Amino acid sequence: MDYPRLAWNALARLRERRPLVQNVTNYVAMDSSANLLLAIGASPAMVHAEDEVEEFVGIADALVVNIGTLSAGWVVGMEKAARAAGAAGKPWVLDPVGCGATRYRTEWSRRLLELHPTVVRGNASEIMALAGAAGAVTRGVDSTASAEAALEGAAALARSSGAVVAVTGAVDYVLDGRRRLAIANGHALMPSVTALGCALSAIVAGLLVVESDPVLASAEALGLFGLAGEVAARGAEGPGTFRARLADALHGLDEASVVAGLRICDAAEP
Amino acid sequence: MDYPRLAWNALARLRERRPLVQNVTNYVAMDSSANLLLAIGASPAMVHAEDEVEEFVGIADALVVNIGTLSAGWVVGMEKAARAAGAAGKPWVLDPVGCGATRYRTEWSRRLLELHPTVVRGNASEIMALAGAAGAVTRGVDSTASAEAALEGAAALARSSGAVVAVTGAVDYVLDGRRRLAIANGHALMPSVTALGCALSAIVAGLLVVESDPVLASAEALGLFGLAGEVAARGAEGPGTFRARLADALHGLDEASVVAGLRICDAAEP
Amino acid sequence: MDYPRLAWNALARLRERRPLVQNVTNYVAMDSSANLLLAIGASPAMVHAEDEVEEFVGIADALVVNIGTLSAGWVVGMEKAARAAGAAGKPWVLDPVGCGATRYRTEWSRRLLELHPTVVRGNASEIMALAGAAGAVTRGVDSTASAEAALEGAAALARSSGAVVAVTGAVDYVLDGRRRLAIANGHALMPSVTALGCALSAIVAGLLVVESDPVLASAEALGLFGLAGEVAARGAEGPGTFRARLADALHGLDEASVVAGLRICDAAEP
Repeated sequence: MDYPRLAWNALARLRERRPLVQNVTNYVAMDSSANLLLAIGASPAMVHAEDEVEEFVGIADALVVNIGTLSAGWVVGMEKAARAAGAAGKPWVLDPVGCGATRYRTEWSRRLLELHPTVVRGNASEIMALAGAAGAVTRGVDSTASAEAALEGAAALARSSGAVVAVTGAVDYVLDGRRRLAIANGHALMPSVTALGCALSAIVAGLLVVESDPVLASAEALGLFGLAGEVAARGAEGPGTFRARLADALHGLDEASVVAGLRICDAAEP
Repeated sequence: MDYPRLAWNALARLRERRPLVQNVTNYVAMDSSANLLLAIGASPAMVHAEDEVEEFVGIADALVVNIGTLSAGWVVGMEKAARAAGAAGKPWVLDPVGCGATRYRTEWSRRLLELHPTVVRGNASEIMALAGAAGAVTRGVDSTASAEAALEGAAALARSSGAVVAVTGAVDYVLDGRRRLAIANGHALMPSVTALGCALSAIVAGLLVVESDPVLASAEALGLFGLAGEVAARGAEGPGTFRARLADALHGLDEASVVAGLRICDAAEP
Repeated sequence: MDYPRLAWNALARLRERRPLVQNVTNYVAMDSSANLLLAIGASPAMVHAEDEVEEFVGIADALVVNIGTLSAGWVVGMEKAARAAGAAGKPWVLDPVGCGATRYRTEWSRRLLELHPTVVRGNASEIMALAGAAGAVTRGVDSTASAEAALEGAAALARSSGAVVAVTGAVDYVLDGRRRLAIANGHALMPSVTALGCALSAIVAGLLVVESDPVLASAEALGLFGLAGEVAARGAEGPGTFRARLADALHGLDEASVVAGLRICDAAEP
């Protein structure tokens, strides 16, 4: 498969269609998620209130549910949004931020997982915690385990839940019960900016609108986002200027850079 | 009328007085609203809790109420703040984000409108929805109609509500029941950054403190903001660096650039 | 005391240990607090919900409680987090944003103070209001009094509460009942960016993990943050590019710049 070419074609379709991505996300991620969705060419909406969240799913093209700053008032909206997306057959992404760090997060991650997200995207610790695969203690929202270490748990999670699982780290992996892709784009400055993983989950939701295969859509989103990180790092003087340049880079991704720069490949079984 | 000169004089007064602008606004817009208010020379405060929102109106110079991420807990504070501003005779701006997208937004936009905002600022779809002028479906928070298409609805809205109405788009319009001004400043990168319209509404509130005519104050705010966008775009490499440079540009607006660059004019009747 | 050398050593320990700083903070400050904690080398977590806030204190290394956008739903989590930190013997910082501006803020600042924060950091008006030292009316979240004017109240506050008090302004002061340090780093652009004081409080919490003397830890945090501001201002074109460069500067602080640039000294009694 010519993954770089496929990714470019998907990006071109996204920019043409400008899918409306509904975000039920955390306070820290809202700014970056909205701005990076705009930068890549999607249309963001932050709509989470119980009184309107289901109605809005009706006009959205895709949904992301992110538990980064969940609380009692918010979980009801998360659940309603996820159910509405399922009922309407619209793709949605679960980002189980900090799953494993507290019982509350683990519990809600699992309850949302039962509502059949199209894709689950997290770091290794979150995915392992959600899979119940290991006793690893998640340390806040940063990953304390490598993506490779989580692959077994991720595969089990994909098989049992039916969701595509994306585990991000130095190398990212996307898998379902049968296939596995590895994505080697990205830059060391990316973990120095908060909530980029959350924004990436939102961008996965955007790609799901224009790419019917969710494994491929997820890998394309991860590759494009990582490639933009590589471009942004050139000329950045640290995490602050890098962050500003990341939006520029997503906005400026062109056919030549995508076709030449994307590093997605089929990965061997674990 | 020498609008550029009037706008410069108003900006100089704002920077001298540093009006305290109370924001009851959405999660996504808080950062940009606070930073861009500071950049232009006003003093922002984000105060929305039921338990203090009315008391704070007593020390604020102006108020903005923005329903971008409204929920049951917040609408009470919005209503209290608006009533308190009305009772105290302080100017306030209503930003009906996403009005028309869900019944909840439309309903709350209308309820807040009944509390007599000094100015309503929105994009064409929001203004049309609020005016009940058309069956246009608002698509998230992005406008799907041109500002020109909303002018008839805007005029009806201004006449029925008594509020000044500002409709922003490629060209912006400000009108009350009698007058109409057109503002032709701005840059194509501005819609690529989230919540700039929200920040603009906050800046309108700031101008209302130093310019007694709300039509003029609104037009000045729109013109100054758009001009800063033009300045920021020079040298920007995309929406991320543009955003950082927008605060720089607002902060750096000087007499020469305002007098030479502002494009506000009296507009013909529809 | 060779304060610059001590500060560099503390920063090196922080970067080695990467302390997990739990933030119960306001909506406006979350983004900057998280990103600037990452930039200096700490690990941020935004966890405030009643259902998990105490459990998370168990894995955090330090806590900051900031009342910038307090509301009825949040104060319960603030109180629980502060009590849990006290019970676990973990350092925590109280940032009484806008104390004195409304009765609600003053009341909650005092209630949280009774839970024995390790450090209280605020501007002069907030500290004076919290100390009950003066009838000065706090004007929003900006300080209307100089840090010097608040020293008497700060000293009284430190003696009565047992907390270290950090008053920030053009010159910052840190004091307990016996000692006082003055910190002369910083730049005039810093008050032009919102929530930098809030981010500074979070960084104080980070330093408390690696420096057992809270007076020294606070002074080091203030000095390092102010020095980064000086570095960031070089080449900044205004508050927007300054903000991006501030994260770069914190990330890039090295031994030579810290040892040469930090201006912390013992200050005379009032």
